[in-house]
This record gives sequence, structure tokens and C-alpha cells, in this order.
Amino acid sequence: MAGALESLESCLERHIPPGELAEVKRILYGGEARKLDLPTAALSAAQERDFELQGYGFEAAPEQLRRPRIVRVGLIQNKLPLPTDTAVAVQVAALHRRIEEMVGVASMCGVNIVCFQEAWTMPFAFCTREKLPWTEFAESAEDGPTTKFCQELAKKYNMVVVSPILERDELHGGILWNTAVVISNSGALLGKSRKNHIPRVGDFNESTYYMEGNTGHPVFQTQFGTIAVNICYGRHHPLNWLMYSINGAEIIFNPSATIGTLSEALWPIEARNAAIANHCFTCPINRVGTEYYKNAFTSGDGGKAHHELGHFYGSSYVAAPDGSRTPGLSRTQDGLLVVEMDLNLCRQVGDKWNFKGRAVSFSSQLWPRQR
Amino acid sequence: MAGALESLESCLERHIPPGELAEVKRILYGGEARKLDLPTAALSAAQERDFELQGYGFEAAPEQLRRPRIVRVGLIQNKLPLPTDTAVAVQVAALHRRIEEMVGVASMCGVNIVCFQEAWTMPFAFCTREKLPWTEFAESAEDGPTTKFCQELAKKYNMVVVSPILERDELHGGILWNTAVVISNSGALLGKSRKNHIPRVGDFNESTYYMEGNTGHPVFQTQFGTIAVNICYGRHHPLNWLMYSINGAEIIFNPSATIGTLSEALWPIEARNAAIANHCFTCPINRVGTEYYKNAFTSGDGGKAHHELGHFYGSSYVAAPDGSRTPGLSRTQDGLLVVEMDLNLCRQVGDKWNFKGRAVSFSSQLWPRQR
Repeated sequence: MAGALESLESCLERHIPPGELAEVKRILYGGEARKLDLPTAALSAAQERDFELQGYGFEAAPEQLRRPRIVRVGLIQNKLPLPTDTAVAVQVAALHRRIEEMVGVASMCGVNIVCFQEAWTMPFAFCTREKLPWTEFAESAEDGPTTKFCQELAKKYNMVVVSPILERDELHGGILWNTAVVISNSGALLGKSRKNHIPRVGDFNESTYYMEGNTGHPVFQTQFGTIAVNICYGRHHPLNWLMYSINGAEIIFNPSATIGTLSEALWPIEARNAAIANHCFTCPINRVGTEYYKNAFTSGDGGKAHHELGHFYGSSYVAAPDGSRTPGLSRTQDGLLVVEMDLNLCRQVGDKWNFKGRAVSFSSQLWPRQR
Repeated sequence: MAGALESLESCLERHIPPGELAEVKRILYGGEARKLDLPTAALSAAQERDFELQGYGFEAAPEQLRRPRIVRVGLIQNKLPLPTDTAVAVQVAALHRRIEEMVGVASMCGVNIVCFQEAWTMPFAFCTREKLPWTEFAESAEDGPTTKFCQELAKKYNMVVVSPILERDELHGGILWNTAVVISNSGALLGKSRKNHIPRVGDFNESTYYMEGNTGHPVFQTQFGTIAVNICYGRHHPLNWLMYSINGAEIIFNPSATIGTLSEALWPIEARNAAIANHCFTCPINRVGTEYYKNAFTSGDGGKAHHELGHFYGSSYVAAPDGSRTPGLSRTQDGLLVVEMDLNLCRQVGDKWNFKGRAVSFSSQLWPRQR
């Protein structure tokens, strides 16, 4: 039964004796992540607003010439607050309200950069292959209501906001894209990053709606570090992560929407491997819950038509360049993960292992030479 | 205490109730691997010879035009049988004997392709930076005593043998390499694959002895499938795995020597990510035990001179293209892991996800285009 286990980590904590638990965590997670001391007001607000709040921290060694570059990142995962056949505008308004109350708690926790889940203003309805009403959720990245909403949040809380939406590019023929809008803590639009690998697997019929993005591998220099957004299916491609990293990203967000039967065994592996291989922090975020659709659809697997896509298993986490990671958020509940990191760790680990330097110089080895 | 936990998997089995254990295994390993029914004679021989024997199987769907391509792979991890200051020839002879008795059991289990650990005929003495006696362990890949020994094994058991050794290339100036020799089940030398990424990290001073290999990314067509060997540190480089896979490898062995404090959190991630990203089977093998050296050496970390490199934590495993994996062998004991796989799974998973196809077509996206 998907969804039966609240989280892998809570299960391990419950059953494994303390003496062995430390070793298990070291092998599974690279050690016990330091717990952040979050404000009581934030913890009780999260409880009132019915979402999980967890906080962890990663350290770096002190250096002589650089000061620590401490940043707090917030990852938000959430269910749909309303049924998928509610009026479009009503669903969007409810999602705005839900995110607003979660970002308020992120602010209490000192979050500098917050990222929401993929296509956060809508149901992940691409399984249906229906155009209406789903394409009505698309908005302009530059001046749509969701971008304006995020700009207000950014200014109010002095927080960089990464807002992954379904984009309609009105300036270029009304084309749809799957796009992350990046907003500075001043409220200014920093730019956007379009999903550049589109799945055609199982119920993920996304190329029915939009194609591979044409924004390359942009990075965004914020007051709190250089960030990039590798959306969902881009997570499966090691070269994709590499390019964001080579372009300078120290933190790569991976807003996603993925389900248990398809990918849960891959989830803890791919983004963490990317953090290791590229000496950066990676932040995979998955939505949570099960979404029902009025009209039944088939899945290209010979099975019967059905009304749901499967269980989005949440489990958002942060992986560090040294291979360690935080526990995951819940598999079943809304949640905010607050992670403090010293970005100096990226270069320190790079100088130790130098995987990325070798990748860059690797082109000379790409094809077999003499045996 | 490194070595305190026999294996992560045995700890989970011992403490987590059966109802939750299945979910834990699904999330951690992609499901419960099917246990192979190994012959009683093999199990008791392994017990007599004091090593762990485990067997698992991966299935593929039936196809109309291809028959199943079932192959059994054997991964061997072992401690040094003698102290590192024993005479070179005596150590090599003891290792030959140890491997001979383990391969005998592999044969009872129907293994078609066996792979030994990195530099299996010697202590992993590169931490010392001493040249003698360690360079005396080097042998010709083409006609050294170890290659001859492996050719005999291959013929006797009708088994492909992958034999990673310290190579001295007498034909080209007596240069040293870290090389895997690949021997056909007929006993013929199929070729060799040289380690192409050399660590310069912690006590892994290997570039003191040999440099990046010049054999590119060769693959070897055997009667039992197309294989490649990505030696040790090459595991950290996603592009390296990609090239072996693009060249046609269905099974990539990763004979290694790595220690707990340095890499244990990375170990379950990297080779498994490579199996996922490249739709192939990967077989990471790590040596096991702690090796002591007579002369103390420092580690470039400001610490005191010491006599041991650290704990080689074994934990050899096999990862499948669908993201699932076997449990690991022991962290502390010699072991043989027998894994049956249907190689048809590689193309089936590739057709489903198509990550590799996208990597190949990815070159057109390598640099940022217009936003």
C-alpha cells in the first residue's frame, strides 16, 4: 500500500536501537544531520497549519580568505487543497493561500531561498491528455498573477522565490512550457528556467502539452548564492546536472512530481549522486498526495482505465556535496524542510575529490583510443 | 567503530517488523530481490572455506523475438590472507589459493562471469608511497603468472574471468598501470581495460605509481553478454559510466578498494545511479578488512603518522537498470555474491525511460542558448 509508511527515516528511528542507528545513518545518509533549533512560534504555526516542519544544517570548515556563506533554504511540498474539478481560479486561489501560510513559517525560520514543487499552481493533470481545463492553469512567467503573488512574498520576507509553473509565453505565439520563475529577494524577476527533458513514460504524457525547454542551463546569482533549477525529469540525466554546475550553480533545485510505483527507488539516488558528482547542494522536491480526475484514462500498459495517477510520495530532501543528506519529509503530508548550509563546502569538497574538474577535462577521453 | 555493523541489510532484517520491512526494502532497494536457490554443496563449501555466499536474481519480461538472455555473475571480495610484510611471492600464492577456492564455489553456483576486487593480487599499499616491494606485485597483463592462473580457471570452469591487477607493460618501457585483464571462458585473452581516473585524495596516492589509463572505454563481447570494467575511482564520474554504456556494455564491473571514512556514504549511490542512468547492470566490488603497513605514513590531513589505511568495508552489490539492487555482501568478511540477470532487462528499461538516448542527443543542448 503506497502511503502506508509515513517516512523511511521515522521507521528506522522507531525500530533500530540507538547503538546501531548511528551506524545505519552513517551508511545510509553520511551521518546524522545536525538538527536546527527552530523557533517555537514556527513549530506551533506549522502544527496549527497542519504541515510537517523539519530543519537540518550542514557545516563547512573555516577558511582564511572567505567568510562562511551561510544560507537557509526552504523546500515546500503540498497536496492539492481542493478537488481537481473545482473551478480553475478557485483552485489557484486556494493554492496561493496554502503556500502563503507555509512561506510565512519559512520566514519565521529565517529561510533565504524558498522553492515550491513543480507546476505548483495546478493538479498534475497531464496524465489525462485533456487540454481543457488544464491549459487554463498556464500563466505568463513575467507578469502572470502567480509571479506577482511571488514577488509580493519575496519583498515581504526578503526571500528569493523559485516558482515552478505551467507557463504560457504570450509574446511568442502562446506556447506552453514547464517553467521555473526565479524572483529575487527584492521582488525583481531574475529570469526563468524551462524544463529541458520531458518525460514520455507511463502516465507522464507531458509532451502532449509542452516540449523540451529552450533556455539551456541558466544559473541565477542571488544575494544568497548562485542557484539553478533542474525541473523534474531532468533529474535522471547526469549531464544535465553537470551543466548547471559547470555554469556555476552552488544549489540546484529539482521541483518534481513523481509517483511511488514509477520512481520511488530512484528518488534517493539521483539527486544525491548529482550533489556528489558536481560538488554542490541539490534539493529535490516532490508533491504529495493522490490526485483524482473525473474522466478515466489509460496508462499505455494494457491496464484498465482509472481515475488517479498514483501516490505522489513527497520525501523532499537536501543532499550535500560531501555525499551526506537530510532525512526526507513525509511521504503523505504537506511539509516544509528548512536546511542551513555553508556554501563554502562546495569548493572544499571539490578541492578534495575534484570530480567536476575531471568531467570538464573529460572530453579528451570521450572516445576509445588505442588499447 | 568501522566494521561494527556486519551489514546494513542484516541490521534492517533483524530489527524492522515484517510488515514494514517490505516497504523499507521497496524504498531503499526497489523491492525484495528474489533469492537464488543455490546448491547445498556450494553453501557448505562456502561455510567450510569461511566466506559468505549470497545469491539473488533479476527478471525481465518475455519478448517475442528475443529469447531470455540469462547470465550468472559472481562478485568476489576478500581480505589479505597474509600480513603485508610477507614475501611478495608468498602473498601472491596465498591470494591465488584463496581465489581458487572461492571460484570453485562460484562454479558450483553456475557463475558465467566472475570479477575479483581491484589489484587483487596485492595489498592496497599505495598509501605508503614506497616503491619497493609494492611495485614487485606488478605483472604483465598478457602473460604474467596471474593471467595464466586466470586462464586456467576460465578453461576449467567455462567462466569469463575479470582479473584486476597492477600491470607492468614490459613491451612499452615497463610502465605501471592499474588494469583489468578480461579472459574469455575459453581461456583466451580478450583484452584489458585500464583505470582511467586516478585518485589523489586522502591516502589514495595512486598517481605516485601509475597515471590515467590510455585504453579509452573498451567493451568485451563474451558468450554471456557485453561487459566493461570501470575501475574504482572511475565510479565517481557519471560520464565515464556513460561511455562504457554507449560503447555497448550491458554489465559494467567496478572493482574497487575504498574505505569507510572516505566513501561509505557514496558507495550505495554512485554505481546504482549509473545503472539507472545507463540502463545497464553495474557490479561494484570492494575489498574487505584492514591492512597494516610496517612503516608509518601520514595522510595529508595534519594527523599523526599511522600504520593502516582504514577499514575496507566490502559491501559489494549489483544494481539493475530498473533501479533495484541486491543487498550488499558483508562489511567485514570475505564473500561471493552470485547474481542471475536477464540482460533483456537493459533494453526493456531503456525503451521505457530512454535516459541514455537523451544523453546521446544531449550534445546539442550542452551550452546555454537564448533565455
